[in-house]
Amino acid sequence: MLKFLTAGESHGKALMGIVDGYPAGVKINIEDINCELKRRQIGYGRGGRMQIEEDRVEVMSGVKDELTFGAPISFLIINKDYTLPNLPEIKFPRPGHADLAGGMKYDFRNLRLALERASARETAARTVIGALCKQFLKVFKISIFSHVIQIGNVKIDKSVSLRKIPQLAEKSDLRCIDRNAERKMKKMIDNARRKGDSLGGVFEVIATGIPPGLGSYVQWDRRLDGLIACAILSIPGVKAVEIGEGIKNVSLYGSQVQDEIFYSWKKGYYRRTNNAGGLEAGMTNGMPVVVRGYMKPIATLSKPLSSVDIDSKKRKQAVKERADITAVPSAGVVAEAMLAYIIMNAFLEKFGADCLSDIKNNYKNYISRLQKY
Amino acid sequence: MLKFLTAGESHGKALMGIVDGYPAGVKINIEDINCELKRRQIGYGRGGRMQIEEDRVEVMSGVKDELTFGAPISFLIINKDYTLPNLPEIKFPRPGHADLAGGMKYDFRNLRLALERASARETAARTVIGALCKQFLKVFKISIFSHVIQIGNVKIDKSVSLRKIPQLAEKSDLRCIDRNAERKMKKMIDNARRKGDSLGGVFEVIATGIPPGLGSYVQWDRRLDGLIACAILSIPGVKAVEIGEGIKNVSLYGSQVQDEIFYSWKKGYYRRTNNAGGLEAGMTNGMPVVVRGYMKPIATLSKPLSSVDIDSKKRKQAVKERADITAVPSAGVVAEAMLAYIIMNAFLEKFGADCLSDIKNNYKNYISRLQKY
Amino acid sequence: MLKFLTAGESHGKALMGIVDGYPAGVKINIEDINCELKRRQIGYGRGGRMQIEEDRVEVMSGVKDELTFGAPISFLIINKDYTLPNLPEIKFPRPGHADLAGGMKYDFRNLRLALERASARETAARTVIGALCKQFLKVFKISIFSHVIQIGNVKIDKSVSLRKIPQLAEKSDLRCIDRNAERKMKKMIDNARRKGDSLGGVFEVIATGIPPGLGSYVQWDRRLDGLIACAILSIPGVKAVEIGEGIKNVSLYGSQVQDEIFYSWKKGYYRRTNNAGGLEAGMTNGMPVVVRGYMKPIATLSKPLSSVDIDSKKRKQAVKERADITAVPSAGVVAEAMLAYIIMNAFLEKFGADCLSDIKNNYKNYISRLQKY
Amino acid sequence: MLKFLTAGESHGKALMGIVDGYPAGVKINIEDINCELKRRQIGYGRGGRMQIEEDRVEVMSGVKDELTFGAPISFLIINKDYTLPNLPEIKFPRPGHADLAGGMKYDFRNLRLALERASARETAARTVIGALCKQFLKVFKISIFSHVIQIGNVKIDKSVSLRKIPQLAEKSDLRCIDRNAERKMKKMIDNARRKGDSLGGVFEVIATGIPPGLGSYVQWDRRLDGLIACAILSIPGVKAVEIGEGIKNVSLYGSQVQDEIFYSWKKGYYRRTNNAGGLEAGMTNGMPVVVRGYMKPIATLSKPLSSVDIDSKKRKQAVKERADITAVPSAGVVAEAMLAYIIMNAFLEKFGADCLSDIKNNYKNYISRLQKY
Repeated sequence: MLKFLTAGESHGKALMGIVDGYPAGVKINIEDINCELKRRQIGYGRGGRMQIEEDRVEVMSGVKDELTFGAPISFLIINKDYTLPNLPEIKFPRPGHADLAGGMKYDFRNLRLALERASARETAARTVIGALCKQFLKVFKISIFSHVIQIGNVKIDKSVSLRKIPQLAEKSDLRCIDRNAERKMKKMIDNARRKGDSLGGVFEVIATGIPPGLGSYVQWDRRLDGLIACAILSIPGVKAVEIGEGIKNVSLYGSQVQDEIFYSWKKGYYRRTNNAGGLEAGMTNGMPVVVRGYMKPIATLSKPLSSVDIDSKKRKQAVKERADITAVPSAGVVAEAMLAYIIMNAFLEKFGADCLSDIKNNYKNYISRLQKY
Repeated sequence: MLKFLTAGESHGKALMGIVDGYPAGVKINIEDINCELKRRQIGYGRGGRMQIEEDRVEVMSGVKDELTFGAPISFLIINKDYTLPNLPEIKFPRPGHADLAGGMKYDFRNLRLALERASARETAARTVIGALCKQFLKVFKISIFSHVIQIGNVKIDKSVSLRKIPQLAEKSDLRCIDRNAERKMKKMIDNARRKGDSLGGVFEVIATGIPPGLGSYVQWDRRLDGLIACAILSIPGVKAVEIGEGIKNVSLYGSQVQDEIFYSWKKGYYRRTNNAGGLEAGMTNGMPVVVRGYMKPIATLSKPLSSVDIDSKKRKQAVKERADITAVPSAGVVAEAMLAYIIMNAFLEKFGADCLSDIKNNYKNYISRLQKY
Repeated sequence: MLKFLTAGESHGKALMGIVDGYPAGVKINIEDINCELKRRQIGYGRGGRMQIEEDRVEVMSGVKDELTFGAPISFLIINKDYTLPNLPEIKFPRPGHADLAGGMKYDFRNLRLALERASARETAARTVIGALCKQFLKVFKISIFSHVIQIGNVKIDKSVSLRKIPQLAEKSDLRCIDRNAERKMKKMIDNARRKGDSLGGVFEVIATGIPPGLGSYVQWDRRLDGLIACAILSIPGVKAVEIGEGIKNVSLYGSQVQDEIFYSWKKGYYRRTNNAGGLEAGMTNGMPVVVRGYMKPIATLSKPLSSVDIDSKKRKQAVKERADITAVPSAGVVAEAMLAYIIMNAFLEKFGADCLSDIKNNYKNYISRLQKY
Repeated sequence: MLKFLTAGESHGKALMGIVDGYPAGVKINIEDINCELKRRQIGYGRGGRMQIEEDRVEVMSGVKDELTFGAPISFLIINKDYTLPNLPEIKFPRPGHADLAGGMKYDFRNLRLALERASARETAARTVIGALCKQFLKVFKISIFSHVIQIGNVKIDKSVSLRKIPQLAEKSDLRCIDRNAERKMKKMIDNARRKGDSLGGVFEVIATGIPPGLGSYVQWDRRLDGLIACAILSIPGVKAVEIGEGIKNVSLYGSQVQDEIFYSWKKGYYRRTNNAGGLEAGMTNGMPVVVRGYMKPIATLSKPLSSVDIDSKKRKQAVKERADITAVPSAGVVAEAMLAYIIMNAFLEKFGADCLSDIKNNYKNYISRLQKY
């Protein structure tokens, strides 16, 4: 099994990660990892920290001569903004954050200790791990990409073929494939910034090239859709997750939403629709996996929210903070990382996990067995 | 940790379950478990199997003189409809089901082997487990209940206090608290039945009495919202999950959705709103946990869908089957079970798991510590 | 991953087990499972219960037409001796048993509740699971067998080729390959019986046909020797475990104990010795896996031990109980089951776990890759 | 649950570790960790590397103002000997090491890639983790210490009270409490060094102050003795593990080895013997936990062993290497770390894991409940 732990605080020395169970023989490109880190940082509507930090990964172990060899891969992302020892105590729990429940749970009264670890900055470490997973999945022509389909109440109003999404999204600093919607989204963001307010939105993350049969229906905790949901909801701010057309479909008839099955000698079994988002009964069905994450507006506002000082118990307004207006594009990039991890894990479970050469063989065998099914 | 495995096929001898890690000293009421099994079975729109089976649990171990004692609890639900050895082979994979990917993954050509285990009948076993968890949680005044808020395109249009939901829902055979909406839902179900079609919908499951600080933000896979999402999406047919007002909130401003924090000497810290659905940063915050599951229309239709015979590769129409029109009320009951399991597990992690007397003490200590926070 | 849970009390309705993750397409022979259950029950020195129970498995799910299909395998072993509801309370904790610490931990004062689950009777369920694992491993020509090498202070004084061990052991009701030693062991057992005393001993369990490269050195909890040790020490009464010549070797020089490496075009890499017991650096090295378990004398004696009544706190002597004199031969059979489980799990991790046809292919690929190494 | 991952190669940039689930509010003393690292490095019979490296930990996260706060603790141990990129390839698999099976498993032909991670140097990271665990356990007056009881064929011939062991062991550079035996051991080591050979031995690791009821008998993988065995056997070179007098007891009668139970109003339940090594039925019984590890002679010898070049397939003798003669004292220190981890994990499972203040309360409650048992 592919396991990982991350560590590090938002203003600590560094973020760190260790990945165990990554197969041997995979070529690792460090610049591609840094590129993912950069993708996570940009985005119209992000605040000032992006200027301070340009995250760079330093791989500490598990890679030699650009190849993995089975040993755990560990890495650091040094924080240029290492100020934790000197930062003032926080007594004012911000609504929508870990502050209050964190302080209660862990029994400390400097709420900074909660926010430093609960901060979305931790997702930089997950982005590195996702980048490692993507490099593995790429060998099997599995691509994972995302785009933003809603900011505030502005939705995209355009649909393109899956193949075109990544190019279009990469060109947009909102990761939005609809230029018209993008313009409105930016206007909404500018407006929110003026008001000291924040915005949420919806991202879609897609994995193509997935073979059928990852995940399983035989035990509840092996259903891949559940595991994906867990991973996507673990991204700070995400409060809902949807597989395929999961929300729209509740209003339709069964005959309208099932993806009928066809067969041709050339393509084998195939579908003409993908309402299921590539997952049936907790397993991939060979269609692209399509997942949407619904992110609430960022809870750190310049505009003060009401709360109370935990020492004096006096009601007061939060101090104004530098903050992002929205982080939906970044959350989409993190969602790619999490989806890459979940899919790679299911892939290794199915095809073995020791070394790329064996996995390739096992994968090939399976695919050729399916062709005769 | 509270762990469980279930086993059994839809038309096999029995469904079974084993629960390990259940604390000693908890009083178990068998009739309350049977009552939950019955709640899972009823519901306007269910098909004929409910008449065949009236599920009854038989506890096989782990309970003596109505008390648990730390040993694993195991149980059977005997299938009255045990016909598996004689049921004909299935060669026709139904869209929206495990059939095709299941056959491919596990390399069998009698697709019945997939559907027998992938069937939602398995959730009867989970309902028993959830009933056990509810009996534990009840000691701590934690209640878990559900209601149906949408069937097809009919949504409820009424809001009542949380306290009233369970009574109103139990009185309705659609588990719907809005009599007016219920009437329209039934009409829609009748209509779908006539057309040989099926319907989906949305259920809401709620847990009240939850202390703050269950779950954690410190590592991605310890966030309680992710774990809840995994559990809810593991229910057959559920394709999206929402915590609190997770979907509505994406269209609003940050200042509109955060649940501001107040304090009174009597109540301690409290909120006046619960947009977060009781979860902030992966932890409970003391407000009710509110989760919604979006269920697609049932994939087994009387109205035939297009698919192909896996042997002849000929396209054909599925045979008409006896089927449910909708199972949203039942899914809500299963969601109660899954939520009860996840919350109990987080509870045991926080307060120990050996015996009720210790857990009560530890819980009391924590609550009284919080009162001084 | 292959996971299992067992449930059931010594005098409860039944023992049960659920195994999840067992591959599809494996032929299951029920009589072979019953045969393993019988092997667990016999043995010179066992007490009277063996006459009461002749354990028979009833498979409840996961097998159809003698084939597995990926679904969880569950089973019952009905207890003919189901008397738990009427058995008297126990207030007298027996030294060497779960009684005292169990009552304290789980906060009950009827110590029967501890002994009913802590009883070695639970290993009947594990024996079934091991039998399932053996049937899988047999497909890959992996054999797992055991013999008794010491009872009390009588050790075997004969060594035969591994191949001959199973036949010789099966013929002996002490599972002992040395007829001379066996005679002395029986005399010692008879003697102990007369004195109302009990005996321990040492069993050896061996797995042949294991490919190199199962397990791993990369993270502490993936070392196969550790996992094996955990499994063997989980057998009631086993207090020490040894891999290969682990104990003898501590007294020797390094140059005497390492298994030197040779190569021939026909055999590939090979060893002439197996001091390492088939495991180097937490991985199998292709040699037979040899593990020894050291079992203490049975703690249930006819001869009373000193203890105190937990209510009166009065010192008293235990009542005389019907008891086994020694259970080393049975423990060896259970150790086969546990070793089979651990090895099958490592095997599935390496070669995939969905279905036998794929696993066979993946295994073949690996073996042929090794031949070119 | 307390989880950890380590990473890093023997001659890589650094060793790293991340510990998740460590409670908040524990005071961490960095110098005490460094002191444990030093204890691991010294020992009569160690080779030259100890001079190159004086390991120092650098805590990277999870500790602020010397206190933990629930966030993952991560650390580095920088390797002064970072030469991995330039070290020559190895084609000659050393018997007794990971080299051959590692190269086969992970499909690489530079065997250095196996030995760099399989090296016992990784245990430096585990020592840090153990040191963190010890600092937690110390709050509850749980002490963990070790001593060497055999080197080669020289055994100690002296027994002292447990309390005296740590002082005596710390004063000896073989961690041996018997000065006379120590002298003979050193002579044996000197002798082995002259011959270019190596030695194994036996260490004993002891935990005192353990409450009864850690671990459980209810499911095989929750038995604490099994978990301890797994942890001890995961230390490179350890090939057998013994709980209490597990090996000696197999030769005795049951009446001689069970630890009879006594009661006094002052002490409560107590034992006069500890043959069980503090563990009955997989649970602690309140007596000191006593575990022995049997370590084979080090497999890296100056005296060459026979093996073959994997490219040429030619037999040749290993080159002479700088090497330790024996590492039993160090292995004992690592065993302390592993035992501390296992016990702390069981402790947290029983008493909660969020913060020290709650754990203290829960522990106190339990102990006072036991006093009335």
